[in-house]
Amino acid sequence: MNEFELIAQLSRSLPGNASVIVGAGDDCAVLDSGQPGRYLLLKTDAVVQGVHFSATTEPERIGHKALGRCLSDIAAMAGRPIAALVTMALPTHFEAPFLQRIYDGMSLLAKRHGVAIVGGETTTNPERLLISVCVLGDVAADKCILRSGAEAGDALFVTGDLGGSLAGKHLEFEPRLAEARWLADHFAIHAMIDLSDGLAGDLRHLLRLSNGGAEILAGAIPISRAAKMQARTESSARTPLLAALSDGEDFELLFTVAGRVAVPLLDAWKKQFSKTRLSCIGKITSAPGLKLRDKTGLRPLEAHGYVHFS
Amino acid sequence: MNEFELIAQLSRSLPGNASVIVGAGDDCAVLDSGQPGRYLLLKTDAVVQGVHFSATTEPERIGHKALGRCLSDIAAMAGRPIAALVTMALPTHFEAPFLQRIYDGMSLLAKRHGVAIVGGETTTNPERLLISVCVLGDVAADKCILRSGAEAGDALFVTGDLGGSLAGKHLEFEPRLAEARWLADHFAIHAMIDLSDGLAGDLRHLLRLSNGGAEILAGAIPISRAAKMQARTESSARTPLLAALSDGEDFELLFTVAGRVAVPLLDAWKKQFSKTRLSCIGKITSAPGLKLRDKTGLRPLEAHGYVHFS
Repeated sequence: MNEFELIAQLSRSLPGNASVIVGAGDDCAVLDSGQPGRYLLLKTDAVVQGVHFSATTEPERIGHKALGRCLSDIAAMAGRPIAALVTMALPTHFEAPFLQRIYDGMSLLAKRHGVAIVGGETTTNPERLLISVCVLGDVAADKCILRSGAEAGDALFVTGDLGGSLAGKHLEFEPRLAEARWLADHFAIHAMIDLSDGLAGDLRHLLRLSNGGAEILAGAIPISRAAKMQARTESSARTPLLAALSDGEDFELLFTVAGRVAVPLLDAWKKQFSKTRLSCIGKITSAPGLKLRDKTGLRPLEAHGYVHFS
Repeated sequence: MNEFELIAQLSRSLPGNASVIVGAGDDCAVLDSGQPGRYLLLKTDAVVQGVHFSATTEPERIGHKALGRCLSDIAAMAGRPIAALVTMALPTHFEAPFLQRIYDGMSLLAKRHGVAIVGGETTTNPERLLISVCVLGDVAADKCILRSGAEAGDALFVTGDLGGSLAGKHLEFEPRLAEARWLADHFAIHAMIDLSDGLAGDLRHLLRLSNGGAEILAGAIPISRAAKMQARTESSARTPLLAALSDGEDFELLFTVAGRVAVPLLDAWKKQFSKTRLSCIGKITSAPGLKLRDKTGLRPLEAHGYVHFS
């Protein structure tokens, strides 16, 4: 049983209540606390030494990543992050200055996005550092974007460049909060997800909740310089395209809009975010399944995204 | 540097924003998201194998404790818990049925208190199980009870019985949510905290934020049967009173009200919660420091609460 199957099984019997708009399964939980016209967003996530960062990772970058992952999920709902709480599980020989530098990295990112850090617990985890972050956000109820709204005929967009994140981007990515809110404010975005498990894997999550399929164009997928470099220098047989399809932790936005909106959206994006690439990589289909079109034709995509457990 | 000193140091430079009513330092963070007359409460906490439970603890009780600790903090603000998120950091050889039983224990507690569980992440922590829980709650803005409101002359109350929690209560306590909301609805509670670090330690937290001192009466402290049993059967030199003063994880409420309210409050409590002891254990003083009065007279209390690190 992998991570997704396990969560899916456990999620089936979780207790709910009248406040729950969206429970487990989307980028964030969506809650109605009674404030007219607004929903609350709640997200928690953890980074673990040896899994998400190494023993030699700079502490500021660890802090950045720990908070950034949750902010990227708030972005995926087109939300506004309000406040974060941090639980630090510290190994036996932690040093206070190291911890201070982790908080420095988190605080810098928090300040850039107007997020308050409203508390921190510490506990012990003798063998390795683990940081769990919880972020509360909110969003206008009519601007909250789920994974489940994609429709056949929608154009499929992705921000930035994909693949090769482990070369560095996974520790220094900027959550696409401003971009996501701009998108939701100016266009009828049907569905959105942030890319943490790899394009192919995350697109499959979106398709499963939207009950659709997709056709993506190999030549349109924005491949990062890091993915190209890796393919050139490593003995690995992975092509840059495969890296862009399956590498995790891109922390970019994948979203869909009605096909007729695609061109005006691209034009407006270029004016608003001239430094960040936006790529139309394919379309949503009513037929289920994920297919890749390249010069040899259309074929089912076997490559899957990064899966934490196997 | 111990846990409290470390958090205090780190907390000084955390970023804030206009939504923050109370940041780090109280039982929960208190936030104003713009809903008139209500505040949001946010709390996160973790339990770690080998620290908060053992390798042989029943999984349902692990789940109960993981969620219960956060709910006890929501209770300490007289809040209503709305939703919880769970991050499971699983050791290498986890088994899905074990995990299901953890969720069962959590879900049972959640249902009793009307809390939705709105998502769960899993990650890896190879050497031991760690569960981080985040709870969102809310409270009427004029009923939210902080640690900082105690005034000289206040009567000091504690619910339940104290000490010896490790004999079992730490895995099966019921968070005092109903009691706390009843207190806030019917009396002007000045300050409140939940007992997780031990009566003496938590009272010191409350006094530090209230800028006061306290005199407690040795004979009035409600000592649990477990603490008395331990003193009788163990070779330890710890008296039951010392256990009640310093043992952690009681998860009871400690609160203060104006002295003139003490008797009517006790009377009303007995009618409302006849099965749960409520004890007036002393008073708040303008002179700083914590003093214990017993038959030998009044003396400074040296015993301190449980401190996670030392």
